[in-house]
Amino acid sequence: MVDPSCTFCRIVAGELPVSVVADEPLALAIMDLRQFHAGHVIIISRAHVHDLRDADAETVRAVFDLTARIARAVQRTFDPEGLSVWHSAGEAANQEVPHLHVHVHPRVMGDMVLDVYPSPPPLPSRDALDALRDRIVAQGITSYR
Amino acid sequence: MVDPSCTFCRIVAGELPVSVVADEPLALAIMDLRQFHAGHVIIISRAHVHDLRDADAETVRAVFDLTARIARAVQRTFDPEGLSVWHSAGEAANQEVPHLHVHVHPRVMGDMVLDVYPSPPPLPSRDALDALRDRIVAQGITSYR
Repeated sequence: MVDPSCTFCRIVAGELPVSVVADEPLALAIMDLRQFHAGHVIIISRAHVHDLRDADAETVRAVFDLTARIARAVQRTFDPEGLSVWHSAGEAANQEVPHLHVHVHPRVMGDMVLDVYPSPPPLPSRDALDALRDRIVAQGITSYR
Repeated sequence: MVDPSCTFCRIVAGELPVSVVADEPLALAIMDLRQFHAGHVIIISRAHVHDLRDADAETVRAVFDLTARIARAVQRTFDPEGLSVWHSAGEAANQEVPHLHVHVHPRVMGDMVLDVYPSPPPLPSRDALDALRDRIVAQGITSYR
């Protein structure tokens, strides 16, 4: 459950200096080292799980329950004009630390902190969307296992 | 709980054509109309909640439990090099529909689908981070209420 080469495992173990916002049985919230706007917090699982694709139900619940409470507290503290919440899974998503974490980041109008889509894609037909849906459903999504 | 002027409430009510990936008691997963990469799914709450800051514990749990299962199914279906998961809360975060939803989006190396930070901010001191932490903790994050 702990990978000694993982920075976040070392943080969970108390081996590295961090500003702990919340310390719970399955999840930890800490101040991100980058504060593009004041109030950037990351929520990490205590267990060494690579990302959301590998997390069990209890870990998902603990991490996002804490994420929601952090979002509310950050909103009350800094009164931003919005919040972005994101999770990066895998190298192509620019995941920086290979240990499940979620960002809560205050937003200011026009700040470009999180930008999606270089350009809007063409809209598929309903039939094409249904076909994609059918492929996903065929994988089974009703349970974790 | 339902806002008749809200597009997502109308989707939840079955009034608009969508490709439903999963239909659960508190959450719904549908194909996003934009498929920059095949497999872009959004997970929405059944209840009309503006965003994560307003959601109760049961809604948060239902939405993110489904999000994790969708992430896994999308990974298995399309085998992307990564996944981005994001939630936009409020206008400054470019929230497009004022009804809680989470994006699951396949990623390909270098695709620029989700880009954070126009430039890396300077790193605050540990004392500065601790001071921010203290302000957030003072708001109370131990429970939803």
